[in-house]
Amino acid sequence: MFSNLQYKLSTLQKLILLTDGSVTTLLEVITGKPVTVSTLVQRIAKADHEIAELLEIEEGDSINYRVVTLRNVDSEKPLIYAESYTPISRLQKEFKYDLMKADMPIGNIMQERKIESRREIEKIEMIFNDEFSEIFDVSYHIPMLSRTYNIISNNMVLIRIIETFPLTSFLRFNAY
Amino acid sequence: MFSNLQYKLSTLQKLILLTDGSVTTLLEVITGKPVTVSTLVQRIAKADHEIAELLEIEEGDSINYRVVTLRNVDSEKPLIYAESYTPISRLQKEFKYDLMKADMPIGNIMQERKIESRREIEKIEMIFNDEFSEIFDVSYHIPMLSRTYNIISNNMVLIRIIETFPLTSFLRFNAY
Repeated sequence: MFSNLQYKLSTLQKLILLTDGSVTTLLEVITGKPVTVSTLVQRIAKADHEIAELLEIEEGDSINYRVVTLRNVDSEKPLIYAESYTPISRLQKEFKYDLMKADMPIGNIMQERKIESRREIEKIEMIFNDEFSEIFDVSYHIPMLSRTYNIISNNMVLIRIIETFPLTSFLRFNAY
Repeated sequence: MFSNLQYKLSTLQKLILLTDGSVTTLLEVITGKPVTVSTLVQRIAKADHEIAELLEIEEGDSINYRVVTLRNVDSEKPLIYAESYTPISRLQKEFKYDLMKADMPIGNIMQERKIESRREIEKIEMIFNDEFSEIFDVSYHIPMLSRTYNIISNNMVLIRIIETFPLTSFLRFNAY
């Protein structure tokens, strides 16, 4: 029902979708409050054919699969939903520990562990998914904005991240 | 005369001062227009004692010194003034070519050349300097916001950058 409509994204939404810096830092400045992670899923899995190809690893290789929401410390309301895939073999020991154990944003882990990288945005999409509507507590007909990007280190994909938030979020500063 | 006053920075100013991503990308999203570089100074120099220490090179080693303003393609008005120091010996040949020849923002060069890095902010200051007032065409009593950060690659300072803009800029989107 929305496919023929045009949307004008807010400047803030564009910032979040296009930044090549830490999303956590961006959200902390935008909201004026510290941002924390709530981990929904954290598990080691075997890469299937599709994800192996995307991460440039072998099918069956171990990956870390993590699903989190980023939220302000004083609020239960998610700002962003983030899914990530990481080839275990490419993780430094300390990074692995932080990623699998602590509720720590990836940008913060990378900063503390002094990891050099670059970010390559693969796609930005508008999607419809009732599960997201429930997570963000918005109506079912609200579209979601989603971007997929890779954090690349040592010329290899270190982390593949998909971030999602409702089209009705981040319309202006301090109003979500 | 301003030293005892408190300033409340705008969210946009904080974003520009605190980002660990490309400032060019940030300015392009904020202004909604492409950003270009105007080169004011571009020269090879010998590192003096102070800059050698900051870049962790030897005194007398060659550095590239570049001063640019970032501005929208359709405007002569500078958005940001940026000074940078780069040890020549740490530059890949292609990066060196882009940096010394073309009017290209550093973030864009790094993205095109696929350079992995991290950014470490050293300090954020408020300064008073009539030369900046002239460059930005603002009154002499307007303070400037300035941040100094290092782009680190291969565990060494690749570029040291000082970015400056007037306290009266970036108070809100699309208003400079």
